[in-house]
Order: sequence, then C-alpha cells, then structure tokens
Amino acid sequence: MQKPPRIHAVKPVTSSRLFHVEEVHLEFSNGERRIYERLANRGNGAVLIVPLLKDDTLLLIREYSAGTGRYELAFPKGHIEAGESPLEAANREIMEEVGHGARDLHLLRSISVSPGYMQHHTHLVLARDLYPKQMEGDEPEPLEVVPWKLHDMEELLLQDDFTEGRSLLALFLACDWLKQHQ
Amino acid sequence: MQKPPRIHAVKPVTSSRLFHVEEVHLEFSNGERRIYERLANRGNGAVLIVPLLKDDTLLLIREYSAGTGRYELAFPKGHIEAGESPLEAANREIMEEVGHGARDLHLLRSISVSPGYMQHHTHLVLARDLYPKQMEGDEPEPLEVVPWKLHDMEELLLQDDFTEGRSLLALFLACDWLKQHQ
Repeated sequence: MQKPPRIHAVKPVTSSRLFHVEEVHLEFSNGERRIYERLANRGNGAVLIVPLLKDDTLLLIREYSAGTGRYELAFPKGHIEAGESPLEAANREIMEEVGHGARDLHLLRSISVSPGYMQHHTHLVLARDLYPKQMEGDEPEPLEVVPWKLHDMEELLLQDDFTEGRSLLALFLACDWLKQHQ
Repeated sequence: MQKPPRIHAVKPVTSSRLFHVEEVHLEFSNGERRIYERLANRGNGAVLIVPLLKDDTLLLIREYSAGTGRYELAFPKGHIEAGESPLEAANREIMEEVGHGARDLHLLRSISVSPGYMQHHTHLVLARDLYPKQMEGDEPEPLEVVPWKLHDMEELLLQDDFTEGRSLLALFLACDWLKQHQ
C-alpha cells in the first residue's frame, strides 16, 4: 500500500446552484505535486432503490433527464435530506416516485460514482413488502412508472433507454441478493 | 411515452479547468417550466476496461482518488482523446496503467453515469489476449497493479476499497459475457 499524499490545501474554485468545484493541492510520497479539481459534496449523498412488488415485479420510472437530454428508464432515486438515514430517504423516494412505501428495506451496497473527481456516494437499496402510499414529489410532470417482471431481466438489459450505471448495477446486486436469500 | 420538453435555452453558468456547468431552460408538455443545471461534456467520454490475463486473472489498479480522498481499487480507466475510438482509447489506457496491450477488445456496454445532471458517458470494455506493453501515463506515482483471480470474484466484491459503481458493474457484465461465450 502506498503512503498517501499530503494535502497541502483545499480551495474553492467556483460554485453554482448545484455544483461546488474545489481544488486539492497534493504532494505524493515521491515528492510529485499535483493540483486536482473535484466536485465537493455539500449534501448527504443519494439513494437509488430497487422496489420489488409481490417479489416478482420491479418498479422502474421513465423520466426526462436534463444531463443526457432524453427520457431514461431507471430505478427511482434522490438525495438524502438532512436528518434522514439512507433507508428513510429510500422509503420517502419510492413513495414520491412509484407510489409505494416498503416495510422491508435492505442496503445492498454503498458506491462511489466517480471517485477520481467526485466526493459523492450513492446507497443502493432493495425495497420489499410494498404497500400503496403516494407522497407528493417535486417532479415537473407525472413520472411514468414502468413495472417489469423480474424473470424478464434479460429483456430489461436490452432496452436502449436503460443506460444508467447505478441502476444496472443495482439490478445485478438485487438479483444476486435474492438468489442467496430465497 | 411522454412528449419531450421544449428546450428554450442552454446557457453557460460557470467553468473551471475540468468542469463546465450550464443551465437548461425547459418547458414540459404540461406547461411546467424548470431550469436545471448540468455538467456539460466537453470531451469524448471515457472508457473503463476489464483486462483479463490468461483468461483467469483480472488486472485492477489501486490509485489515489482525489474525489473520495483515499486509495481506491478499480479497473483502469481514462478519457477518450480526440481522434480515438473507444476501443483504441481502451487499449492505450491499459498500456499506460497495467502494462499490457490487448489483441481482443469487446465493448460490453455504454452507460450514462448520472443522466439527470451529467452528459457524460462511459464505455465499458473487456480486454483479452493480452501482451506486455508499457506506455508512459501521466500518473504522479507508479500505480499499484492488483491481479485478481476471476474465481475469487466474491472475495473482490467484499473489498471495502472496491466501491466504484462503474467498476462493479463492469465486473458483473464481464462475468456474464464470459459465461455466455466460453
């Protein structure tokens, strides 16, 4: 294992409503110096949830995504609000986005999204034992909820609007977990 | 399928060396208006490579990641340079980062990283039929190359510095592909 670099300074570079860029002044153990930019995490991270209805049906959403500029099929997700645990945030998000709460929430894995230049972490959560419960979200238009049979997972993987890395990974992890626990 | 929103304007908000924030002025088909921020993609996207040595050994790297502020175990990755195809970029990156070229490169999947607020795409590539070939990279210190037997994948999943979502997904996709093609 390498001796970690010394951090000489962390300085804000620029900010917008959503993004906070800072630079990290590093000196590696061999004396090499680098200034790297990263996106600072001002929030509490995010959750992405695999909601499983009646143990055989995944609930996805199709939502306009301003980053890619098109509708994307993905699992519900959102930011963790102040004072919420990741599992509480997961339960709130599925009430807002797919109209269900869950009695059984399980953390599959916490992942980094782009560790080289983002502090951000996302918690991937499996939600089971669902019950109908709708909470108001802040979406500009009603989200399309897309039910998908678990045994048609191969077909889901072929959908060309199902591109989000975190959703794809969550699907694999949920299937693995279910295989081991059923 | 929803009628997509009208894009009234895309305006630059702020820039740094690495990041370019812009706002997208949207009007949804129901008349709702929103201004969303996103990170614009000024480059050609990225590649992440699963290098497979002798069909039984994965090559990973352990590298200091300024975003999370610690050493992370992950597959080699990097930006696609101007004029390069994703597979050419993949081959260059593994020469720089794990000291091997590949005679057999296969695109597993192209993914979006965070479609809500990033334009960025990453191409996940499986590299086989490797041969020793070192190219100079721009790393501040030598990368630690970590060989991992494919049949010890479960153990790899348990490593607490193996957190990157794209690397985890690429591992699942590579294993699936190998199962179907061996």
